[in-house]
Amino acid sequence: MDPVKTFKDLEKHFAAVAPERRIAVVCPSDDHTREVVERCLNEFGSRLTLCCCDSPEWADSLASANPDAINVIRCGNADEAARAAVSEVRAGRADVVMKGAINTDNLLRAVLDKQNGLLEPGHVLSHLTAAEIPSYHKMLFFSDAAVIPQPDLHQLESIINYDTDVMRSLHIKEIRIALIHFTEKTNPKFINTVYYGQLKQMNTEGHFGASTMIEGPMDVKTACDRHSAEIKHIDSKVAGDADLLIFPDLVSANTFYKTISLFCKATMAGMICGASAPIVIPSRADSAISKFYSLALACTALK
Amino acid sequence: MDPVKTFKDLEKHFAAVAPERRIAVVCPSDDHTREVVERCLNEFGSRLTLCCCDSPEWADSLASANPDAINVIRCGNADEAARAAVSEVRAGRADVVMKGAINTDNLLRAVLDKQNGLLEPGHVLSHLTAAEIPSYHKMLFFSDAAVIPQPDLHQLESIINYDTDVMRSLHIKEIRIALIHFTEKTNPKFINTVYYGQLKQMNTEGHFGASTMIEGPMDVKTACDRHSAEIKHIDSKVAGDADLLIFPDLVSANTFYKTISLFCKATMAGMICGASAPIVIPSRADSAISKFYSLALACTALK
Repeated sequence: MDPVKTFKDLEKHFAAVAPERRIAVVCPSDDHTREVVERCLNEFGSRLTLCCCDSPEWADSLASANPDAINVIRCGNADEAARAAVSEVRAGRADVVMKGAINTDNLLRAVLDKQNGLLEPGHVLSHLTAAEIPSYHKMLFFSDAAVIPQPDLHQLESIINYDTDVMRSLHIKEIRIALIHFTEKTNPKFINTVYYGQLKQMNTEGHFGASTMIEGPMDVKTACDRHSAEIKHIDSKVAGDADLLIFPDLVSANTFYKTISLFCKATMAGMICGASAPIVIPSRADSAISKFYSLALACTALK
Repeated sequence: MDPVKTFKDLEKHFAAVAPERRIAVVCPSDDHTREVVERCLNEFGSRLTLCCCDSPEWADSLASANPDAINVIRCGNADEAARAAVSEVRAGRADVVMKGAINTDNLLRAVLDKQNGLLEPGHVLSHLTAAEIPSYHKMLFFSDAAVIPQPDLHQLESIINYDTDVMRSLHIKEIRIALIHFTEKTNPKFINTVYYGQLKQMNTEGHFGASTMIEGPMDVKTACDRHSAEIKHIDSKVAGDADLLIFPDLVSANTFYKTISLFCKATMAGMICGASAPIVIPSRADSAISKFYSLALACTALK
């Protein structure tokens, strides 16, 4: 298939794998999540386990109408529902976890549980966003706008590994990564610029796979606008054509996320990487279509 | 006059004060700066001192044609031109300093010189941006996208004082300030959220003047979108209607600046506050109109 450049492309990729995907949904009773569940079932033929923490009449009737595709687990509360979804993954009965009407912290507590969770030793949880911005020529990915406040070198390395794995599963073959900062110089006063030098070195040693290009530090405009890069005489295959932006911290990544969402009419999807299954944690304010794309991203990202 | 809500408004405010303004321009020989100089002279009747570091034929002919309005100081190099402009301010012959074809660091070195500079004890230099974003309902100001990497409490206090002084001179009477972060909670792990609590307390004590409202921490979308604030049940006069965003650090402010510039078709102007005269430091990539608005902002900001 062609590389994913838009959410319409992503939908096609998702359609190809959706019938094989088993999705565990935690507290699916809010309108948007319910809409996503029904769409995945009816349009794409996915199988879903609904971990319900309130009276699940609609879930029960969905299950009776689709006994092979829908399974309902009744739970006493949201925490129990989160643990049930995690157990489904551990037992090999679910591939992806999706958050409904539950607090993100409560869901992540079950995921991070040392005994019964989904995080293997040496791994970290991190967040990947995929954004379709009307004025950009392809899908723009970035991390981490949701989980790690101030990633260290090891965490940045993990983030790049997780993100490039996802992007390769979307058939993006040459991955251009821009390491974001306000400066273009390595400066020990700004520790991330030092990490960036080390990440670039790792990449020249093939650490992030062939045909992955990493450049930086550079700012968002240099990363995404060829003209700005030219004015600054920056000769780089990444500048002006980035596929993935790695931000130095959560404040700047969150600022980027909220700004393109509000002022640039961007459509976005997001997922959490690093656990033994992709996890989708849309926020309350996300639209149903954004929640659907997030789930499609997580399902397509699976090898 | 009406409060400045657009750059067209700013131009009107500038027109009213321009004939009284004396502008010292450092190395004005690049095309954009020259265009701004000629516009200020011909359309607005400002007086300008051109501190030239190369053969200033055009400057000389401008001075002979406008002997009352144009003064040329020939300098051996850019550093000397910067010192000349600073001296003009110190001698009471210039109100505003504008950067032309000189490196920002070199200009600021002259401004920060302990003996002969423009920074009084207890003051800090900080940067204020004014942005006209097509999808926002008024001018949006923010700091600090250019100077202070990681402002501490005292620096944040100074930034708010400087910014609100500028905004009041633009006749913005009720100033809504959003303190930006990814979280909405005060958390000692994120020191800025603690500073934010102290800044809000100072404001309730009248420290930043009457009719200044300060709220936060909140994210960019909550600050500028009423709907997002409502979904999050945030009851605030600032949320959704911010005039001024205070970012926790330069990386996030720079990300906001570059993102609205590239993806949101924002028009922007900027100035440095804190010195004994406003300083305009446009970057090489700025358009002539953006440079003009920056100078207009600095000239209008003067009491």
